[in-house]
Amino acid sequence: MSKYAWVTLATNDSYSLGALVVAHSLKRVHTEHQTAVLITPGVSESMKTKLRAVFNVVEEVNLLDSKDEANLALLKRPELGVTFTKLHCWRLTQFEKCVFLDADTLVLRNCDELFEREELSAAPDIGWPDCFNSGVYVYTPNMETFSSLVQYAVTHGSFDGGDQGLLNSYFSDWAHKDIQKHLPFIYNTSSVATYSYLPAFKQFGQNTKILHFIGVAKPWLQNFNSETRKVYVPSECQHLANFLQYWWDIFAEDVHSRLSPDMSGLAGALANVTLGEPRTSEQDRIEEKLRRQYWEAGNAEYVGRDAFKHIWAKIQQTMDK
Amino acid sequence: MSKYAWVTLATNDSYSLGALVVAHSLKRVHTEHQTAVLITPGVSESMKTKLRAVFNVVEEVNLLDSKDEANLALLKRPELGVTFTKLHCWRLTQFEKCVFLDADTLVLRNCDELFEREELSAAPDIGWPDCFNSGVYVYTPNMETFSSLVQYAVTHGSFDGGDQGLLNSYFSDWAHKDIQKHLPFIYNTSSVATYSYLPAFKQFGQNTKILHFIGVAKPWLQNFNSETRKVYVPSECQHLANFLQYWWDIFAEDVHSRLSPDMSGLAGALANVTLGEPRTSEQDRIEEKLRRQYWEAGNAEYVGRDAFKHIWAKIQQTMDK
Repeated sequence: MSKYAWVTLATNDSYSLGALVVAHSLKRVHTEHQTAVLITPGVSESMKTKLRAVFNVVEEVNLLDSKDEANLALLKRPELGVTFTKLHCWRLTQFEKCVFLDADTLVLRNCDELFEREELSAAPDIGWPDCFNSGVYVYTPNMETFSSLVQYAVTHGSFDGGDQGLLNSYFSDWAHKDIQKHLPFIYNTSSVATYSYLPAFKQFGQNTKILHFIGVAKPWLQNFNSETRKVYVPSECQHLANFLQYWWDIFAEDVHSRLSPDMSGLAGALANVTLGEPRTSEQDRIEEKLRRQYWEAGNAEYVGRDAFKHIWAKIQQTMDK
Repeated sequence: MSKYAWVTLATNDSYSLGALVVAHSLKRVHTEHQTAVLITPGVSESMKTKLRAVFNVVEEVNLLDSKDEANLALLKRPELGVTFTKLHCWRLTQFEKCVFLDADTLVLRNCDELFEREELSAAPDIGWPDCFNSGVYVYTPNMETFSSLVQYAVTHGSFDGGDQGLLNSYFSDWAHKDIQKHLPFIYNTSSVATYSYLPAFKQFGQNTKILHFIGVAKPWLQNFNSETRKVYVPSECQHLANFLQYWWDIFAEDVHSRLSPDMSGLAGALANVTLGEPRTSEQDRIEEKLRRQYWEAGNAEYVGRDAFKHIWAKIQQTMDK
């Protein structure tokens, strides 16, 4: 059995849909390595069972019940809770090396060569490219690193309030020390387009190995036609159409049949949808409810046509603090 | 006299305003090196005289009148004209090494250490960070490199239609070969904010050495109060307020008195504005005309609140080709 693992994180049943698609995308490209998922209490019992059927390792993490010193420190900084959850990946010491993948990524080609890289290897972030994006990174599980990271977080916090700011401060020599730790952008191709992005995407995008659905294009928030199994792609995401359809293909073929109505959020709603058949009025009713849920989830995650306005308001609020 | 030079490019009188501010920003940080500007026939005679008073070297480039082989090849690819103009910087062989700066940059601190870097050193672009941004780069003037670049352009074109696509294809090992050729982002800090940019800007932005006004925030297109000498900063650019004001401070103190009404575009219009005095009705009339020019220039350059929509339409058009 491989001593290497792909690791992801799911904090609720909706993100678990993403985690399941990530795992199946890895199987489709015939990875030789194991898969692991960190889950929090937000994941339902029913979903846990499905995750155990797909991942080699399902690790439940629950910061507040934990008794070690690091977590006691955390209790004084509860706002860092989300950040800390990701740090638990360093505790998977049954593996020699790991690659972390956010649940909103999609592996398009075999990337087992990533395990030849050293900690901490990652691709640049499009916001501030001297920072790496923490959606895909190579790391070495180690309890001392975990403790050190937690201690660093408690002492310094995170400049963006999330794991990306924290990890960039901790691994601060990433930008200028070793080019080998700069993963090519095709291992973490961001889905958000700027005016200089699309010509480059047209030039280099066909080489993409891992797509990262940041921003407006979360795949599970796009409208999906249950009869034709086709995803409706918003006009501003047309360059992502093939990737979004591939996500839903994996969903339809490998994930949908494993869902059950007692799951929460989108997972439970999608369990009630019948695929590949003309829609009955009952199906219409279910899908209408689903669209409403998409919409609500979408608003909460700042997607849609007004996305930039909302994001900007949030940014301003943060900057004004 | 230094054998090193800072090089910029001005294709008309409005961009010459930018070039003049760049040159004065370099003087203010006491660079030890020379300054050079490439100009095209779009720059008026009056402006040429002012540029010669400020820059050590003013080099007129005119592709279509030129007789060498490279330019004959170009005649078959006229759409590459703009790209080729920038390539002329490699012909400044009176200098041993140069740093190119776009006319929409602003040097905030002494950066003479950049001349210790080798060709081609540049900072990552925020669109596709495995490409460098061609607004700031270290290079070695050399006629063979110039010819080779022109030949490459004629043969391969440019994937984004501009100099950035061409230079990235030609210097294609930039991304993964030598970390020393990755300039820190603070040497070419883009002014365009994404949702992961602003927290990082708050963390690292105070270290910025060269700001690059890409996107909505072209300094000479912002409204400027001639009486108070303050620039009006749009709400979405508040994080750039100090930088925009600094650009206008240099304009008011070092550039404005050198302008004359026979200059074209914004330069000529700004020559008619009186600074630091209560506005007369005549001044109001001039400034109203100026605002109209700003607005028209703004529309042409896709700035303003609808910027993303316009840019997106352009991108879609390009992608659909």
